[in-house]
Amino acid sequence: MQVEEVGKAVEELLKTPGENQEQVMQSFVESQSPEEVALVLESLPPEERIARWSQIPEPLKLPVLVHMRNDPRIVILKQMTDDALMALCDHVDADTLLELEEALPDHIIDQSLDRMDAFQKRIYDSAQQYDTDSVGRWANHSLLVFPSRTSVKVVKRLLRPGAPRLTEVLYLATSKGKWQGCVSVSKIFYADDSVKIGTLKEEGYPHLEAPDDVYECAEHTIQSGFSALPVVSEHGMLLGRMDLYTAIEILKEKSENQMMASAGLDEEADLFGTVRKSAQNRAVWLGINLLTAFLASWFIGLFEMTLQQVVALAVLMPVVASMGGIAGSQTLTLIIRGLALGQINKANLKTLLIKEIKVGALNGVLWAIVIGIVASIWFSTATLGIVISLAIVINICAAALSGVLIPVLLDKLNLDPALSGSVILTTVTDIVGFVTFLGLGSLLLV
Amino acid sequence: MQVEEVGKAVEELLKTPGENQEQVMQSFVESQSPEEVALVLESLPPEERIARWSQIPEPLKLPVLVHMRNDPRIVILKQMTDDALMALCDHVDADTLLELEEALPDHIIDQSLDRMDAFQKRIYDSAQQYDTDSVGRWANHSLLVFPSRTSVKVVKRLLRPGAPRLTEVLYLATSKGKWQGCVSVSKIFYADDSVKIGTLKEEGYPHLEAPDDVYECAEHTIQSGFSALPVVSEHGMLLGRMDLYTAIEILKEKSENQMMASAGLDEEADLFGTVRKSAQNRAVWLGINLLTAFLASWFIGLFEMTLQQVVALAVLMPVVASMGGIAGSQTLTLIIRGLALGQINKANLKTLLIKEIKVGALNGVLWAIVIGIVASIWFSTATLGIVISLAIVINICAAALSGVLIPVLLDKLNLDPALSGSVILTTVTDIVGFVTFLGLGSLLLV
Repeated sequence: MQVEEVGKAVEELLKTPGENQEQVMQSFVESQSPEEVALVLESLPPEERIARWSQIPEPLKLPVLVHMRNDPRIVILKQMTDDALMALCDHVDADTLLELEEALPDHIIDQSLDRMDAFQKRIYDSAQQYDTDSVGRWANHSLLVFPSRTSVKVVKRLLRPGAPRLTEVLYLATSKGKWQGCVSVSKIFYADDSVKIGTLKEEGYPHLEAPDDVYECAEHTIQSGFSALPVVSEHGMLLGRMDLYTAIEILKEKSENQMMASAGLDEEADLFGTVRKSAQNRAVWLGINLLTAFLASWFIGLFEMTLQQVVALAVLMPVVASMGGIAGSQTLTLIIRGLALGQINKANLKTLLIKEIKVGALNGVLWAIVIGIVASIWFSTATLGIVISLAIVINICAAALSGVLIPVLLDKLNLDPALSGSVILTTVTDIVGFVTFLGLGSLLLV
Repeated sequence: MQVEEVGKAVEELLKTPGENQEQVMQSFVESQSPEEVALVLESLPPEERIARWSQIPEPLKLPVLVHMRNDPRIVILKQMTDDALMALCDHVDADTLLELEEALPDHIIDQSLDRMDAFQKRIYDSAQQYDTDSVGRWANHSLLVFPSRTSVKVVKRLLRPGAPRLTEVLYLATSKGKWQGCVSVSKIFYADDSVKIGTLKEEGYPHLEAPDDVYECAEHTIQSGFSALPVVSEHGMLLGRMDLYTAIEILKEKSENQMMASAGLDEEADLFGTVRKSAQNRAVWLGINLLTAFLASWFIGLFEMTLQQVVALAVLMPVVASMGGIAGSQTLTLIIRGLALGQINKANLKTLLIKEIKVGALNGVLWAIVIGIVASIWFSTATLGIVISLAIVINICAAALSGVLIPVLLDKLNLDPALSGSVILTTVTDIVGFVTFLGLGSLLLV
C-alpha cells in the first residue's frame, strides 16, 4: 500500500548515512511510481530533497514534478540553473507545462512553447483560455480521435497495440476538430470491416462544457456511469476528456484543499517550508482570529464590575462558551453536509430550524442540570447554579440557530461554509455565552 | 448537475400543496437516477418522506433504499408491514441485502435468504464471513467469469449484448470458483475463434486479499491504473471485484464519515431525525467536551485570588487561549495531512518539530507585540501588556509542540488524529494559556 511504502522509504532514507542514501533512493525510484517518488521528496527537508532530486533519472523528473505540490516543487526548481531547466523542459507536453506553469519562470515557459510542436501548442493555447476553475483547463488529452469516415478495418488495426486506459469509446471529430459524437469500442469489434465508424455513433452521448466548474464536472463524470466524458468548447470543438482518474484526482484535491483551508492553510503548502514563509502564510488566519477574540473580550469587559464581585463567573465562563461552541458545530456540520448534497433550501429550512432548536433545547436542559449542580456544589451557592444553567440553555439554543443560519447565509453569498462557518459560529457562541452568563450574573448574583 | 437537480426537486415538492406533490414526484422519479431520488427523500421531513415513498414504482424501491443513509432509510422501513417488506425483498440480490442488513428486521432477512437462489446465497454467505471493514464484504459482483477452456468464439458471442461497466478484463476461475487470472477483452477480440481464453492470460495481474482494509484497497485500486481489481479469499476463491466506482464511493463515504465524526456525529445520521434520537446521538460528544471544559475551569479556579485583584486578566483570558488554539490547529492540520500521506515518521519528526516551533515562535512574537500594545493601552498598564505578551509566546510555542506530538501519538495508538486530535489539542492550549497567563499575572501584577 502506498502510505506504508512512502513511510518506509522516508524512514530508510533519513536513517542511512551519506553515500548509502543514494542506493536506497535508487532502488525506491526503480520500484515505485512517480506519485510515490513525489510524496517521498515532499517528506524530506529541503537540503535532502535537493540532494535526492539529482539522483532521479532524467526521463522521470517531469512526471515526479507533476505529482508534487507547488511549494515543495518550487524548492527544487529554484535551485536549478536556466540551462538545467531548459533541458528539463526540452520536450515538455502541453499537460505537463500547464501543471508546472506556476512554478516555472516566465522565460522558461516561453522558450518551451517556442520549441513545442504545433499540436501540443494548440492544446496548450486552448486550455490557457479557461481559468483554473474550468474543466476546459484540466481536460486530459489521452483519447483517440478519428474522422467519421474512417473504416472499421483501419480503426481495428490502429487499436491493436492498445489504447489509453479507460477507452470505452472513440471520439469523432471533423478535420477542424469539431466534436461529432462517440463510438463505443465494443460496437466496432462486432462491425464489418468496410463500415464507416460514423454510422456506429452513439445517440445522445453526454459531454461537458469547457467553461463549467471543474469540480462539478468531476462529480458529473462519476455519476454519469461512463468512464470518461468529452470536454467541448463553446464553439463545439473537442478539447479533451475528463476520465474517472482525473475526476478522482480533482475530488481528492478539493477535499485536501478544504481541510487545509479550514485552518487557514494553503493546500500547496510545503511540510518543510521555510520558517519565514510558513509563518507568513499562517499570520493572516491568526490575525482574523485575534479580531474575533478581542471582540469577545470587549463583551467580557462590559462586566468588569460584576467579575470583580463574583470571581466564580470568571472561572466558569469558558464552560458556557465551549458548550455552545460544540453544540453549534454539531448543527453546523450536519447543515454543511446537507448543503453539499443539495438537500437544504428555503422549503425545508424552517422545519430544520425548529428541529435543531428542539434538539438544542433538550440537550441544553440536560447538560444545564448537570452543570448547574456541579457549579452549585463547587462554589456553594445555588443561585450561581441557576445562572449557569440558564446561560447554558440559552447559548445552546442560540448555537443551534446559528448552526443552521450561518452556513445557509454563507452559501447564499456563494462563500464556502466549510471554510469560514466555524470561525463565525464560535465567535457568536462565545459572545452569546459570555453576555448571557455575565449578564444573568449581574442581575442575580451582585 | 446533481446538487441543483436535488435542490430544485426538494423545493418544488415542499412548495406545492397536497395532491400536486404526487405529480412533481412522479416526473422527478421518471427523469432521475435512484441516487438522486434517495437524496430527495432524505431531504424531506418524516411524514412527507413516507408519503412520497409510496409513490415510487416497485422496481425502483430497492435501488433507492440502497442509496439512502441508514437512519433516514429506517424511518421508511419501520412503517412498512411485514407483508410489504417481504414483497419488497422478494427477489433481493446478495449485494442489496448486505447493504440493507442493518435496517431490516432479522426475520425478514431470514425469509429473504430462504427464497434466494443458490448462486446469490453463496455470494451473501461468503461476504458475511468478513467484517464491515474488509474488502471481502464489499466486493461487487458485476463481473464476467469464465473457465479457462472457453473458446474465444464463445466469449465473443456472450460479450456481444454488452458487458458490465468497466469491463476491461474477464476473470478466469475453476468450476469450484478458484481464481486463475485475468484476460484482457481487447486481446480476445484480436485472437482466433478457436483459441482457449486461458492461453491469453495476463501475467502477474494484481489482486486484492479479501480480509484487507476496504479503504486501503480502494486507494490501491485507484493507484493501480486498472479500472477494477479482483478480490480473492484466503483460499484463492474469486469473491468479486473492486471497481473504480466502488472505490470512489468508499473514499467519499470515508471523507463524509470523518467530517461528521469530527463533530461527534454519525455519518448515517438523518437530517430530519427525531429530536430525541438526535439529542441522544450528540449528547456523548457534549459530555466529553464538558469534562475538558471543567478541567480548564479547574485550572482557572486555582487563580481565584489573582482574578479578584486584577479583573483585566479575566477579560483577556480568552484571547490567550484562542490564539494558542488557532496556531495549534494549523500545525495539527499540516501534520494530519502528512500522516495520511505517509510522509511523517520518526526520521523526520525532529526536524519538523523544530521547524514548527520556530514558526510558532516567530508568529507568537509578532502577535504578542500587537496584543501587548492593545492590552497596555486598553487597561493603561504596561505590565499587563508584558504579561499577556509572554503568555501568548509561550502558548503558541506549546501549541506548535502539541500540534506535532498529539497527532503522531494518536496515530501510533492507531486512533484517527482527524477525529479526536482537535479536542485534545484545544484542551492543552486552553489549559496552558490560562495557567501561563494567570500564573504570570499572579507573579507580576499582584
